[in-house]
Amino acid sequence: MKKEKFVIGIDYGTESGRVAVVRARNGEEAGNAIVPYADGVIDEKLPGGGPRLEPDWALQNPRDYLQVVEKGVPRALRAAGVKPGAVIGVGTDFTASTPLPAKADGTPLCMLPRFRKIPHAWVKLWKHHAAQPEANRINQVGAERGEEFIRTYGGRYSSEWFFSKLLQILDEAPEIYEETDRFIEAADWIVWQLTGEEKRNTCTAGYKAMWAKGRGFPSPEFFRALHPRMEDVIGTKVPEEYYPLGSRAGGLTPEWADKTGLAAGTAVCIGNVDAHVAVPACTVTQPGAMVMIMGTSICHLALGPARCAVEGMCGTVEDGVIPGLWGFEAGQSAVGDIFGWFFENGVPASVERAAREQKMSVKDFLEKQAARLRPAESGVLGLDWWNGNRSILVDADLTGVLVGMSLATTAQEVYRALIEATAFGTRQIVEAFNARGVAVNVLYACGGLPERNQLLMQIFADVTGLEIRLAKQLMTCPALGSAMHAAVAAGSQAGGYDSIVQAAQHMAAVQKHSYKPNAQRHGVYNHLFREYQLLHDYFGRGANDVMKRLKELRKQVMQGG
Amino acid sequence: MKKEKFVIGIDYGTESGRVAVVRARNGEEAGNAIVPYADGVIDEKLPGGGPRLEPDWALQNPRDYLQVVEKGVPRALRAAGVKPGAVIGVGTDFTASTPLPAKADGTPLCMLPRFRKIPHAWVKLWKHHAAQPEANRINQVGAERGEEFIRTYGGRYSSEWFFSKLLQILDEAPEIYEETDRFIEAADWIVWQLTGEEKRNTCTAGYKAMWAKGRGFPSPEFFRALHPRMEDVIGTKVPEEYYPLGSRAGGLTPEWADKTGLAAGTAVCIGNVDAHVAVPACTVTQPGAMVMIMGTSICHLALGPARCAVEGMCGTVEDGVIPGLWGFEAGQSAVGDIFGWFFENGVPASVERAAREQKMSVKDFLEKQAARLRPAESGVLGLDWWNGNRSILVDADLTGVLVGMSLATTAQEVYRALIEATAFGTRQIVEAFNARGVAVNVLYACGGLPERNQLLMQIFADVTGLEIRLAKQLMTCPALGSAMHAAVAAGSQAGGYDSIVQAAQHMAAVQKHSYKPNAQRHGVYNHLFREYQLLHDYFGRGANDVMKRLKELRKQVMQGG
Repeated sequence: MKKEKFVIGIDYGTESGRVAVVRARNGEEAGNAIVPYADGVIDEKLPGGGPRLEPDWALQNPRDYLQVVEKGVPRALRAAGVKPGAVIGVGTDFTASTPLPAKADGTPLCMLPRFRKIPHAWVKLWKHHAAQPEANRINQVGAERGEEFIRTYGGRYSSEWFFSKLLQILDEAPEIYEETDRFIEAADWIVWQLTGEEKRNTCTAGYKAMWAKGRGFPSPEFFRALHPRMEDVIGTKVPEEYYPLGSRAGGLTPEWADKTGLAAGTAVCIGNVDAHVAVPACTVTQPGAMVMIMGTSICHLALGPARCAVEGMCGTVEDGVIPGLWGFEAGQSAVGDIFGWFFENGVPASVERAAREQKMSVKDFLEKQAARLRPAESGVLGLDWWNGNRSILVDADLTGVLVGMSLATTAQEVYRALIEATAFGTRQIVEAFNARGVAVNVLYACGGLPERNQLLMQIFADVTGLEIRLAKQLMTCPALGSAMHAAVAAGSQAGGYDSIVQAAQHMAAVQKHSYKPNAQRHGVYNHLFREYQLLHDYFGRGANDVMKRLKELRKQVMQGG
Repeated sequence: MKKEKFVIGIDYGTESGRVAVVRARNGEEAGNAIVPYADGVIDEKLPGGGPRLEPDWALQNPRDYLQVVEKGVPRALRAAGVKPGAVIGVGTDFTASTPLPAKADGTPLCMLPRFRKIPHAWVKLWKHHAAQPEANRINQVGAERGEEFIRTYGGRYSSEWFFSKLLQILDEAPEIYEETDRFIEAADWIVWQLTGEEKRNTCTAGYKAMWAKGRGFPSPEFFRALHPRMEDVIGTKVPEEYYPLGSRAGGLTPEWADKTGLAAGTAVCIGNVDAHVAVPACTVTQPGAMVMIMGTSICHLALGPARCAVEGMCGTVEDGVIPGLWGFEAGQSAVGDIFGWFFENGVPASVERAAREQKMSVKDFLEKQAARLRPAESGVLGLDWWNGNRSILVDADLTGVLVGMSLATTAQEVYRALIEATAFGTRQIVEAFNARGVAVNVLYACGGLPERNQLLMQIFADVTGLEIRLAKQLMTCPALGSAMHAAVAAGSQAGGYDSIVQAAQHMAAVQKHSYKPNAQRHGVYNHLFREYQLLHDYFGRGANDVMKRLKELRKQVMQGG
């Protein structure tokens, strides 16, 4: 028997990086290490001091990304009991769009002493929401000029994305813009660090930065219309060439070989996005299914044979997930976060006491109480926009709604209404896909929520009327997906695979248990969903922009001192 | 100096009766006694057993009303150190519409053994909400026939009122309807018991039972159109004659003189409504002011020189509050009740802990936190319909709304938004009055809320832009008002007064401190109020009847078993 081969997948999350050592043969995880980011999410003050950040800001320190490799790889290898020499490839995935400004040699501006106290010199994390005015301008100019990317992104380009964040730098800190030689996704920056090659991936470029296979970027005229100084951004700060998912970016540099113990020259895969690598890790490599990465938010991904303009998609990218297919991305900007908010701010002390008496956690107690309710029993209906709406309205300025409270409404009823609201949000997305011919016949789920919340999973099945299958490695799909891509980058000759489809056949699996919809409950939810849609359209499509006006009034009042 | 004279005011509330012994000279309370109703609010099971009550039901036991007099009067006299002989009159006020079916001799049906287990034989408390279908029918028939009472009640007759409750009996328990010789407000029933005279008051008849001075009731044709067996209701179960407020119904019977120690023949005033007697007790006897009786709900009363059709008024009654003036009534069906709901169901354990650390009650702690927020700072806006909307939409099927929640929304922000929502509800009423020429230039407040919640009072002043003056006897206005009416029934010859205006000049007073609106906050609230109005009209005027459909769906699901 040949000596067993391993691949390493590194998943860069919001709070930490996770390194997994995975058997190339069958996808089993042999060991792992989690490295929390020392500076976490920077949303109040920069590590080195400086001005107080505005409430919508969210930054990171790129040094934390390097620490994940340096500390995490040796630890994960030790935990797995695997010799570094058995590792044939390294793959990474990242949150996105999480870009940073760098010098021509790859040095982040925030690592240079003269820029350390300037917030715009740091990494802008995906959930940095302060670039809404810039996103509005991009959408306005894009719509006026009939730019193709407007179609690609379902009608709206998000404030979370690459060029919104770059334009914010130009608007608010033009000196930082000038000093930026390369504006780059952290997904590509980390690969550059590991290999010495600045080779960028098609996934982040396609989903976050207006790039399309065969067509490239919008014209210099478009960028000039955005801002005169952006005319030449493509070809200077942002390159024109992008590399397919699963391809080899290069070999590990001797310096990183030293730090990690891995062999110099080990295949390093081109970068990728955390949600997108999870799709093949859920076994999905063909059209007909939708994968939901469920955690604080939900990312929805589906595959189709051809281009298709679905309303409010976050992205429509050829080869964006699986080579040869179009990848469609949608999302809900808060799901688990809403429940977290509710547990923190909405669960009364009486429930906490009752849970304690039954020796249950508050979460388990509330879930048990809420599970006893029938659909429509609470009389409460919500819009799940506590953090805006990513799909299908693509509007960060929308906010949460609850309708139907009476003096008899209980905390468990509100909790169930919140869960149902997030399920309606997903159904809205599924229906938008189906309406445009991107078939969604079955759902796949991975992430933290499916494991923690069975009631939620059943409600999602009942609301959508679709079966939900669960990834075998529920919590660790992205790391597995990155490891699978590493195996492809290494190639079958080295003990890996020739394609991601092949890798999925060997390395990915689903659980035996799945959630199946109940017809009676689905029938009741059909009624409630129509009510959800009415409120969704009323508050979300301009009939009453009260949410935006409340935000604007709040801003004025707070500035009024 | 003449021997000092006293009057007794008895205020029948929702949970208890309050007996006050008051100095006729200056309105000072010399002593009082509170007698809780042994059976309280009957909303689950009848005292003697029988079927489980539906959720919208609320009944009472008339025996409890008698106990208030029998136990309360002697106790209050003892507490005041007043000899019974010094009492020149007794006045009463009641919740309304709180009617009961009785035999021709005044015996309530529920006191007869054969009816004791039939819910419809008992007193229907004002907040019994199960007669909505009957109210709908009354409004439909009334509108089709162009009946005058539709105008009197601002366009809608409430499910809480007299004929809705009577029609419910006829619909659901026709045998009880047949056995009913007299259908009578508890306000009039208690006076009948004390004097042996069935003399009914113009206030409950005018505000709750379609009666109008000089015009009487709707025609037999109207009642036949409601239900064939109701054709002759007026003149049989409901008499045609009504007596002005402050008039002497009769003298105390020897039997009640025995029970209470008062002299037989002591003047007993005609019945009245708790909110309405509070108006002169707040010193208000002229147009231009609105009185708010603020507790679990708010009752709004204003005076005008002439008839006027104001949208959504609960009632427009000539001589209904002060003789010679038109009395206009409006209301909010839940105010303090909403905060009570929130403290029970919405305040997180973390707030409870923080309050304990600061050695404050949760309510005081939250009020302190909420008071630090500026108007519009929370970004949250609500509709105060947790118990439906009494004015100006007159629709019990409406429910609560909250809009604008984000992941950063706190419990104190929601609390403040709830307070603001109730203030917007009052402003909506004030504006409806002003729009039709019933001037409201200043507010007067009494009841439990003004004493307990200073933040609320300031927000009401800031939202409405009006000064709010407080009754001197904040919590006991109705008992004082009843005592004032008792003094009028006794007359000046006996040591009382010749009119309620005169009685108010001597017996009523306001506090030195008043709440004055802040111009800057009022400006911000003007913006928020426009948003409130948009939502109010959208959810309340038929653009989206989601609240009704949610209630209907809930009913179907719960009946589905």
